[in-house]
Amino acid sequence: MNAPTDIAHLLPTVQQRDVPAEFIAALQQRFGTQCSTALAVREQHGRDESTFTVPPPAAVVFAESTQDVADAVALCARHKVPVIPFGVGSSLEGHLLAVQGGISIDVNRMNRVLAINAEDLTVTVQPGVTRKAVNEAVKSEGLFFPIDPGADASIGGMAATRASGTNAVRYGTMRENVLALEVVTARGEVIRTGTRAKKSSAGYDLTRLMVGSEGTLGVITEVTLKLYPLPEAISAAICSFPTIEAAVRTVIQVIQLGVPIARCELIDAGTVRMVNAHSKLGLREEHMLLMEFHGSPAGVKEQAETVQEIASEFGGNAFEWATTPEERTRLWTARHNAYFAAIQSKPGCRAVSTDTCVPISRLADCLLDSVAEADAAGLPYFLVGHVGDGNFHFGYLIDPDNADERRIAEELNVKLVNRALQLEGTCTGEHGVGLHKMGFLLDEAGAGAVDMMRTLKRALDPDNILNPGKIFAV
Amino acid sequence: MNAPTDIAHLLPTVQQRDVPAEFIAALQQRFGTQCSTALAVREQHGRDESTFTVPPPAAVVFAESTQDVADAVALCARHKVPVIPFGVGSSLEGHLLAVQGGISIDVNRMNRVLAINAEDLTVTVQPGVTRKAVNEAVKSEGLFFPIDPGADASIGGMAATRASGTNAVRYGTMRENVLALEVVTARGEVIRTGTRAKKSSAGYDLTRLMVGSEGTLGVITEVTLKLYPLPEAISAAICSFPTIEAAVRTVIQVIQLGVPIARCELIDAGTVRMVNAHSKLGLREEHMLLMEFHGSPAGVKEQAETVQEIASEFGGNAFEWATTPEERTRLWTARHNAYFAAIQSKPGCRAVSTDTCVPISRLADCLLDSVAEADAAGLPYFLVGHVGDGNFHFGYLIDPDNADERRIAEELNVKLVNRALQLEGTCTGEHGVGLHKMGFLLDEAGAGAVDMMRTLKRALDPDNILNPGKIFAV
Repeated sequence: MNAPTDIAHLLPTVQQRDVPAEFIAALQQRFGTQCSTALAVREQHGRDESTFTVPPPAAVVFAESTQDVADAVALCARHKVPVIPFGVGSSLEGHLLAVQGGISIDVNRMNRVLAINAEDLTVTVQPGVTRKAVNEAVKSEGLFFPIDPGADASIGGMAATRASGTNAVRYGTMRENVLALEVVTARGEVIRTGTRAKKSSAGYDLTRLMVGSEGTLGVITEVTLKLYPLPEAISAAICSFPTIEAAVRTVIQVIQLGVPIARCELIDAGTVRMVNAHSKLGLREEHMLLMEFHGSPAGVKEQAETVQEIASEFGGNAFEWATTPEERTRLWTARHNAYFAAIQSKPGCRAVSTDTCVPISRLADCLLDSVAEADAAGLPYFLVGHVGDGNFHFGYLIDPDNADERRIAEELNVKLVNRALQLEGTCTGEHGVGLHKMGFLLDEAGAGAVDMMRTLKRALDPDNILNPGKIFAV
Repeated sequence: MNAPTDIAHLLPTVQQRDVPAEFIAALQQRFGTQCSTALAVREQHGRDESTFTVPPPAAVVFAESTQDVADAVALCARHKVPVIPFGVGSSLEGHLLAVQGGISIDVNRMNRVLAINAEDLTVTVQPGVTRKAVNEAVKSEGLFFPIDPGADASIGGMAATRASGTNAVRYGTMRENVLALEVVTARGEVIRTGTRAKKSSAGYDLTRLMVGSEGTLGVITEVTLKLYPLPEAISAAICSFPTIEAAVRTVIQVIQLGVPIARCELIDAGTVRMVNAHSKLGLREEHMLLMEFHGSPAGVKEQAETVQEIASEFGGNAFEWATTPEERTRLWTARHNAYFAAIQSKPGCRAVSTDTCVPISRLADCLLDSVAEADAAGLPYFLVGHVGDGNFHFGYLIDPDNADERRIAEELNVKLVNRALQLEGTCTGEHGVGLHKMGFLLDEAGAGAVDMMRTLKRALDPDNILNPGKIFAV
């Protein structure tokens, strides 16, 4: 890592702990072929979508049950070996990297939908089930699960990073949509948090403490989610704008009026070009809002008319409608693939992803200044945003081996985060802290709050074996 | 306390700790007339709406600022004296009782609305501001704050107990509606949790950890809340039913269909009689649903038609409408006063309140069996329910000095809670654990989860000074 000093604190500190040979032997004895020490397997589990490279974990356990996870963690506890839960590997901030060594627990084989309670609008799944698999499973009941980060992430990983996505503006994030969890603690014990009741005041909110804890307080082995009836009517529309500002001002007014818009995504003209190239869509290459309305046929019509009226005031074009389910799916798939479209636009590149989120009244200030800065810096980037929530992402496309590009990207991110914090926002709307945002977390939350987090971590994981070195240096 | 042994564990254990004379002197020196040791003041702060009587705190500090709270807690920390935050005294489970002695910090004078950010739909208030005062303050901006426990509770207290009320079925509880907090820790330090951004993945969710922690992890000194635009149209309707079951089956279907009903309250015929007597309303004395619809004029009409259709299938009568704001206010005020109407129906009585909440598909089973049991037991009771959430309350009206009545009420509650837990529900939907539900919390969450809660408590409050003896015996 030959990055300049001023961004050195943003790069991971690698301090691998000893992994005793007798631990590996015990692991292999307990797990047999469910345990691999093959380099290719370890390397696959030692990276994510972040730009960092660190040595892989010493072994990977493919857990098939809660008992497997509990036994693996108990072994790690006995030998004080770090343990990192692994879903599909789509996290963006270095969450999965074995910066202190140890092992990875892959939960992909824990992919059963355990219970669909259609009448209660809940589903209980194992952590390796992906968001698309949940939706496949509940579709025939007339239900859906709205949370949709770009990748087809695992539900366990989504809970661990407090993920959200395009539907959060109406349906909330994993914070609002996880009802209950089963969790393996640092001692390898199994606990349950929450119930299937819609609300509760029964003691500390352990569910919400685990959601977003990035594997540092426990390993999630079961998740109960809220579901929603498939809307009677859905319509999706694209609206093009002359400027980013016009699009953003439209969104601000839509939210302030309380229009229950289901999705409200900004894509800048440059990113539309990348998406067109990748998904062969032929979209008009202008700044656009990609929107979706859910409700009764009359309600959807009413919402769309209100939004069209606001958009027109700001110079937005007439809506282009995606009326069939197939057209809608094609559009949203393209949106979800914007990240991959951007990566493919510059061979060999990685994306340094930003993730600020600000109060909606500050969105224009935060976004426009950052666009100007990015344009001036000259790095290629993509720009997409869950702008209805005040959340947007730049992805600065860098050659990971080019220290200059990395520095420029990190400097842009630092400026953006500082701006968002000054505007009463957060350094991460939905990606998490991982390795990359520790310094920003301190700026955002303050030393007292981070100290409280650290105290909680030490209390629940005194030997610091659960995904150590993430969120904060303990 | 001469209650029979089988419910003895539901009564508070009083173990008052020493309050050193030099501590009281230091408190008086720092706070002057803001500190009272007068018996009447202490007694007023040593009780709530629960049925328990324990000796009052040794002193009451009337805090006027965060610094006051921080200084009072720091003094308590130095002398290891318990400290109990006090809002308006409307909690129901003994939260405010000084079972281990110590002092009360009254936050009523911290009653300023600090910032209304109308464009962002947020408001920041001191903890002594009540829910009605919040609504008064934001009304002229065309906004409202939906969370409404029966009493005009303080926002600090509502956050501390994870309160909800009649609007939760649409707008969520304090869990979903607190964005950020300022909190004084057990050491008397001031921290901030959360930001005004609508969502965040920045580290552990300290906000949600504090919400519902009942004063045992910190003293809340500032709360940032979500607001909502006042609906363009509101309509309220009463629908009478031949049986409670018919009303409940109607609700279950409304929720399963995803109708965005804003309020959906069950009141049984006996409680309607009490409400009529107290509020002079002349309502038809039958089991009823009291409902409210929010939205556009067309949307409200559509929702009401759907619900009327479902209700009719179950034998519900034609809706009676409350069309003017005045009529609506009168109806909802009567609903909120049901508790007080019931208390006044039996002079000198107290109510043993139940608070179970179950998945909606289990609501009929849970409620109807419990009604049969209550009728058989012969104690007068009231029955109201936020049935759209699966949450309902019996209030068994007892003479607090009559051990037999207390025993019967507690036994009914035990049976009800056991039933709710078997049906995957919770022992408390919105009142909290306090003194009264510790045993139930253990049954619900399991020893492992309660042990985790206790570990968190010990880590953040090693000397156990923050509202000790609540939620669990540490």
